[in-house]
Amino acid sequence: MTDQFSKKSEAWSARFSEPVSDLVKRYTASVFFDNRLAQVDIQGSLAHAEMLAHQGIISAADYAEIQRGMAQIKGEIDAGKFEWLLDLEDVHLNVEKRLTELVGDAGKRLHTGRSRNDQVATDIRLYMRGAVDDIIGLLRELRSALLDLAEQHADTILPGFTHMQVAQPITFGHHVLAYVEMFGRDAERMADARKRINRLPLGAAALAGTTFPIDRLRVAETLGFDDVCRNSLDAVSDRDFAIEFCASAALVMTHISRMSEELVIWMSPRVGFIDIADRFCTGSSIMPQKKNPDVPELARGKTGRVNGHLISLLTLMKGQPLAYNKDNQEDKEPLFDTVDTLTDTLRIFADMARGISVKPEAMRAAALQGYATATDLADYLVKKGLPFRDAHEAVAHAVRTCVDRGCDLADLSLDELRAFSSLVGEDVFEVLTLEGSVAARDHIGGTAPNQVRAAIAHIRNELK
Amino acid sequence: MTDQFSKKSEAWSARFSEPVSDLVKRYTASVFFDNRLAQVDIQGSLAHAEMLAHQGIISAADYAEIQRGMAQIKGEIDAGKFEWLLDLEDVHLNVEKRLTELVGDAGKRLHTGRSRNDQVATDIRLYMRGAVDDIIGLLRELRSALLDLAEQHADTILPGFTHMQVAQPITFGHHVLAYVEMFGRDAERMADARKRINRLPLGAAALAGTTFPIDRLRVAETLGFDDVCRNSLDAVSDRDFAIEFCASAALVMTHISRMSEELVIWMSPRVGFIDIADRFCTGSSIMPQKKNPDVPELARGKTGRVNGHLISLLTLMKGQPLAYNKDNQEDKEPLFDTVDTLTDTLRIFADMARGISVKPEAMRAAALQGYATATDLADYLVKKGLPFRDAHEAVAHAVRTCVDRGCDLADLSLDELRAFSSLVGEDVFEVLTLEGSVAARDHIGGTAPNQVRAAIAHIRNELK
Amino acid sequence: MTDQFSKKSEAWSARFSEPVSDLVKRYTASVFFDNRLAQVDIQGSLAHAEMLAHQGIISAADYAEIQRGMAQIKGEIDAGKFEWLLDLEDVHLNVEKRLTELVGDAGKRLHTGRSRNDQVATDIRLYMRGAVDDIIGLLRELRSALLDLAEQHADTILPGFTHMQVAQPITFGHHVLAYVEMFGRDAERMADARKRINRLPLGAAALAGTTFPIDRLRVAETLGFDDVCRNSLDAVSDRDFAIEFCASAALVMTHISRMSEELVIWMSPRVGFIDIADRFCTGSSIMPQKKNPDVPELARGKTGRVNGHLISLLTLMKGQPLAYNKDNQEDKEPLFDTVDTLTDTLRIFADMARGISVKPEAMRAAALQGYATATDLADYLVKKGLPFRDAHEAVAHAVRTCVDRGCDLADLSLDELRAFSSLVGEDVFEVLTLEGSVAARDHIGGTAPNQVRAAIAHIRNELK
Amino acid sequence: MTDQFSKKSEAWSARFSEPVSDLVKRYTASVFFDNRLAQVDIQGSLAHAEMLAHQGIISAADYAEIQRGMAQIKGEIDAGKFEWLLDLEDVHLNVEKRLTELVGDAGKRLHTGRSRNDQVATDIRLYMRGAVDDIIGLLRELRSALLDLAEQHADTILPGFTHMQVAQPITFGHHVLAYVEMFGRDAERMADARKRINRLPLGAAALAGTTFPIDRLRVAETLGFDDVCRNSLDAVSDRDFAIEFCASAALVMTHISRMSEELVIWMSPRVGFIDIADRFCTGSSIMPQKKNPDVPELARGKTGRVNGHLISLLTLMKGQPLAYNKDNQEDKEPLFDTVDTLTDTLRIFADMARGISVKPEAMRAAALQGYATATDLADYLVKKGLPFRDAHEAVAHAVRTCVDRGCDLADLSLDELRAFSSLVGEDVFEVLTLEGSVAARDHIGGTAPNQVRAAIAHIRNELK
Repeated sequence: MTDQFSKKSEAWSARFSEPVSDLVKRYTASVFFDNRLAQVDIQGSLAHAEMLAHQGIISAADYAEIQRGMAQIKGEIDAGKFEWLLDLEDVHLNVEKRLTELVGDAGKRLHTGRSRNDQVATDIRLYMRGAVDDIIGLLRELRSALLDLAEQHADTILPGFTHMQVAQPITFGHHVLAYVEMFGRDAERMADARKRINRLPLGAAALAGTTFPIDRLRVAETLGFDDVCRNSLDAVSDRDFAIEFCASAALVMTHISRMSEELVIWMSPRVGFIDIADRFCTGSSIMPQKKNPDVPELARGKTGRVNGHLISLLTLMKGQPLAYNKDNQEDKEPLFDTVDTLTDTLRIFADMARGISVKPEAMRAAALQGYATATDLADYLVKKGLPFRDAHEAVAHAVRTCVDRGCDLADLSLDELRAFSSLVGEDVFEVLTLEGSVAARDHIGGTAPNQVRAAIAHIRNELK
Repeated sequence: MTDQFSKKSEAWSARFSEPVSDLVKRYTASVFFDNRLAQVDIQGSLAHAEMLAHQGIISAADYAEIQRGMAQIKGEIDAGKFEWLLDLEDVHLNVEKRLTELVGDAGKRLHTGRSRNDQVATDIRLYMRGAVDDIIGLLRELRSALLDLAEQHADTILPGFTHMQVAQPITFGHHVLAYVEMFGRDAERMADARKRINRLPLGAAALAGTTFPIDRLRVAETLGFDDVCRNSLDAVSDRDFAIEFCASAALVMTHISRMSEELVIWMSPRVGFIDIADRFCTGSSIMPQKKNPDVPELARGKTGRVNGHLISLLTLMKGQPLAYNKDNQEDKEPLFDTVDTLTDTLRIFADMARGISVKPEAMRAAALQGYATATDLADYLVKKGLPFRDAHEAVAHAVRTCVDRGCDLADLSLDELRAFSSLVGEDVFEVLTLEGSVAARDHIGGTAPNQVRAAIAHIRNELK
Repeated sequence: MTDQFSKKSEAWSARFSEPVSDLVKRYTASVFFDNRLAQVDIQGSLAHAEMLAHQGIISAADYAEIQRGMAQIKGEIDAGKFEWLLDLEDVHLNVEKRLTELVGDAGKRLHTGRSRNDQVATDIRLYMRGAVDDIIGLLRELRSALLDLAEQHADTILPGFTHMQVAQPITFGHHVLAYVEMFGRDAERMADARKRINRLPLGAAALAGTTFPIDRLRVAETLGFDDVCRNSLDAVSDRDFAIEFCASAALVMTHISRMSEELVIWMSPRVGFIDIADRFCTGSSIMPQKKNPDVPELARGKTGRVNGHLISLLTLMKGQPLAYNKDNQEDKEPLFDTVDTLTDTLRIFADMARGISVKPEAMRAAALQGYATATDLADYLVKKGLPFRDAHEAVAHAVRTCVDRGCDLADLSLDELRAFSSLVGEDVFEVLTLEGSVAARDHIGGTAPNQVRAAIAHIRNELK
Repeated sequence: MTDQFSKKSEAWSARFSEPVSDLVKRYTASVFFDNRLAQVDIQGSLAHAEMLAHQGIISAADYAEIQRGMAQIKGEIDAGKFEWLLDLEDVHLNVEKRLTELVGDAGKRLHTGRSRNDQVATDIRLYMRGAVDDIIGLLRELRSALLDLAEQHADTILPGFTHMQVAQPITFGHHVLAYVEMFGRDAERMADARKRINRLPLGAAALAGTTFPIDRLRVAETLGFDDVCRNSLDAVSDRDFAIEFCASAALVMTHISRMSEELVIWMSPRVGFIDIADRFCTGSSIMPQKKNPDVPELARGKTGRVNGHLISLLTLMKGQPLAYNKDNQEDKEPLFDTVDTLTDTLRIFADMARGISVKPEAMRAAALQGYATATDLADYLVKKGLPFRDAHEAVAHAVRTCVDRGCDLADLSLDELRAFSSLVGEDVFEVLTLEGSVAARDHIGGTAPNQVRAAIAHIRNELK
């Protein structure tokens, strides 16, 4: 017998008449990006070996040897002493080869009843399950930080914008809660994706199952999977879970991009609603006065990265015949980079949320500009009996007059206001105040401070 | 008062000094694609009006008038007699204007306590809820048709391919079940997306809620929503559900593309595994002999369409500040086209699945080519005591010899086989048969006919 | 002989045993979106017929009949009287069938030596050539309108932003010219794409060429193509030109999105740099005071649409084997919609550019905020002999002091400034003025007003 | 003065009150992926310094010192001894800091009149120009290898497919030339992209130009740029060239994916048209008989990667206001990975093209299946006077008969053929041969062997 592992190209060389070239080796190898799967690869192999032993497919002695070898390999990897070889192509062969060095024939028996196809599918799912759990935790942290910010500013008034034009007064706490909602849906989607990640492909072998009397449910239980993949061909070729995860990640980043856009605009000197702590900003190599909100800008840019990875994976899977094709190896880098991008971004945003200083005066000044209470005036007229459409038109005329004069609605006299509708009375000026406007939107989801506080309490309870 | 609806550009014209140009009108109008929302728009308006009346915000008489007017409008639309006007921009104003023509001031009161922002968000969600329910039904139909096909061919043997190379024998029923699994996950994802679709934005008004004493939970109950959107800013700006739906749709189409790819290859004369009924094929304008599998090819192409729509929506939402921006109007066309593409494609595939004729002889002939049972031989040696890696290598040598001679493994004599491993015995020839190979993969998810039948029964039960 | 065209499904029915179903017919038909190719289809057919006659493949009498029939069909289409039939699947068969009705056997001879595969490829290229020429013209119009705006504001000072923070003073004319550059590159790219569009596929027939003695160069000359496609398989399957066009279109829309983002921000009341004419804006159904910049917002949203179409086409072509596959029919809708989106958007932007009112006082006020001349101070110190890095640091200290005090650099006294560097002299205050700062950036591409005027003159000359 | 470079976070720290956190540092740093720009960064700095000296902005002595320092740094980098520091954020500061260590104040003067914004833009363009030139060279190599393959098989007949159904006989040389055309257009597009890459942004400084009397045309000439970017704001914010390159790259990969799809199908045992040399294939960890075409499969998968990068960049730039924003830092990783993917893939494909063994007998056998000469029979009837549409129908009837009988058209007797059209004569059998069919398509772009040879000669001449 030759040394089957001295090079991967020779690991099953007997059928081949020439070795792969160095360029091909580098082109087709995955070891330098899939070695982050090493821990889950070992975890999966141990569960497989345990089952093989339990079923009498390998001996208890072999299983003990495999355990011993894997423990040593794990130690070597943890210590950074494991030597990853390009010639062995991927994480699986690198580990298996080392195992065989360490424990001989027992190592050669580990691959009984499985294939790299189901092995790598298992590894990725184990890895992704952990990543999703981390991300759900980070979403919780971010939401928690935002809840604190919202609570501090449940009464702070700023203009709500639509089309970047002043619409109606709202509270900053209410605005922040919009993001808490978004990240809450993200956590829901991640939890839904987890259900489909957490199914065991192992046992599908190359594509058709194996002739050995394996017990897949046992392995699933050992590894904490909810179920086994119910069709072997599908098990080795399915990458839905990777795409679903990336789609959910793209939504997380979309929310991050929206929040970032607002942070950048709010920190722009013409707006000046907030400041972001220096530690999240950098300066300029040429302009000594600059303090740039680098973190939200970069995060906004990273949206593109995740959208791109989603397209990579969808393109990858388009039109692939069953079962496993080498194309699938391209699933890892976009997936891993998406995990890293999300993890880093959420962590840094949770931290940054606590580094936002709000400038209530600037917000209030802005709310007084732009006829923010015009809708309140229209609603006032409706309550006096005017149909909404007529009230809307009357107020539009009043606003037009104010625009021409350069004044606010509240600056008009009672008589002037009555010129637009005889229904206007003394009590009109109350509805034209910012506080009155905000407090009046007092129903579930509305911007009234007591509704904001109720919403915070509600979500805090959920996050417990 | 002017006629507020004679043209949309004048519906709130009092504030403006010049009308929009015709090009702008056409550019910004949505009525010619959003009028498919008419029925849900009316449904939403009626629920809103019922609540307004219940809360005493409008009178019972007004509500009755609104009901009468809406009933007539519904009739006009159903009869194709409703005149959609570009000047009125969108479905909402077209309906509201007609209502006001029919019932006067009661119509002008309908918009009390709401805005187009929450109105359109409600309409789309109602529409999407129905579309998702249809799609879940169509996925069930397709799965059911595929189950029938799988059952007919639970014993039909064809080569399983990996890398388009013959891997191991499988049954056609098993292969078909892989797609049943995929479409099953699609249905799960659609059901998960439905949860997040089925929340009521109405009551968010423009962005901040309303000053009227509305009862959002009442409207939610009337319309069958599971919950209300908990933050008004988020409610009017959220399009997550559209993106999540398109991402799920992109996965459906990815599965369709994979199945299509296989159908096209299987129908190619060199493969010849199946024939597709003439009614799903077309000929050529120049080549009289052609019968082309147009439907699967076109469906494969439509994958691009849905991936594109997903990117449209993600790009649309990237970096949008709160709350509503006009950009959002661009959500509808990609969403509607995705619904149509999925609905048509699933319907036609469910039908086509019943128009597939299988050619078992061609499948069998192919399975006899390519050393499909080499793994069985290796497993045989393992069971005789050889470590798997050594067994793998011994068989590779045997295959190499067969390739050189142009024969199959089963064509080697016992002595010849024993040259590769002395463990080979008389019983080896059984494991080299296709039937033996297939039957031996007898565990959950394996290709053994009895496992295929068990899986079919299991899924049939789920679909009940 | 049967009536070959009574239904398309029977146009080449002899080989088939059952007709296509109605759903299949609708799914596979393209006539309701490809009929915009009718004029170029006729143009291409006439050039083909002229060549057939010239080469003696059809008679002069047949050619005359075809010309007569096509003239009538063209008239019917122009008059909106041509009846498009779903049963005839596409524009080509609809036209050919009508021709055969009108001129009998001559019509049946038109398809000699060609196939729908090369016919549709020719049609799309003719159509796209025209569309690209239109778009190049519209880009010129937009650039011209922007040049006029830039010229009016060659001296108007506003803050240049990086990271949305005030960086250095610039002129508005200079800012506008940045977009003139972008749209200039777009025109270059469109012209480059046109070279690859303008090659004739006709003569490739189904995929391999034809047995008739055709003269492809003659047809190319008649139709104004620069060259013929040099390989028949490539000719019928190539859709590179569609992808290249959409990629170039995506860049146009990217530039539109950037300009739109700025217009929306500039029109936001906190910034208030510009106003956009009422005819490009709309109001709100609920908030009577609103004037929203709908056109730039919608245009920004349409970026997603075009990015999506690009992905559709790339996904469509991925992994397609040669030569023609039905998938390719999916090329038309994304392509046509991209043409329409670009054409409408560029036309409306050229118009809107003339509807932008600039508010120089607001711009100037903003430029005085944010230490815009800090770099000038650093450059001043460098010119006095300090290394740039040291000058940068000295000014950073000065800015820090101003931030703490809430004043501008120009508000510091000479002595105070000298505290940061003894190199500061009396002449420092000149470099701290906005006009001085702007005028000093006086080199090709710099923001100095005379450089802006020179750039305008240069581009005007190009556009002649 | 503090040590300005001990940490990047302190390089311009004077304005800041707290350092950036470690997580932020890692999140915002680019040095570990942008250090591949080191050589072009030095090249650009030297050209800038030369100009500064020539203009008298720095002294000749300073320039000499900068040259000396940079020579040493280049040496350190080449030798792998340069220490890249995360604290210094990017390649530019790492190099500048080391320069200052080596040459003191002269190093601090290097950044006079420039900013990192124009510096990085210059670096990327220099890098991309080199990458594009490499890629154009690799496309030439690949086309050259394919031309050799085409020439060897100018007469080898295989079935041409449309819809994966047998269409008409073609030659393998002709088929290969289709890809030569595609890669030829790719080279054209790369050359067009190069024109827009090769313009110099340096001199734009941060965004507005500089107050120093720089000579941008001099720097452009030194660095071999065709022109300078004509607007400073555009110069620092433009990433069109990156997007245009990625779009062109996506087309290259689309062609690679199509070729790969065909190679994989052709090597599948049911088709068996070719074999790919062992060095481009790998085996299976479980199935000893497998020889998988890994390289084309992986390349097909990498299409997704490049499409994804294109979307990343388009998403990145969408809606970015002028001028430079930190988002832009995200341009590098997708761009660099696209360059690497293209470079590796083209190199390996040029090599693999020489490792393809063609199996002419299998091709011929396939061409005899599927009525490949039916069009020839129709053309024959047309030449005898039948209108094409009638000829098409007559042959369809003949094919139908053959399908029912399970024979080929050439197997019908003269009398049997005459049953479909009385125009059939003795000479019909010549047109039904594969060689006759192929030779008859004898016009530019047709599949006739002499046309294939002429096309090869034509392209060889171009490639010289």
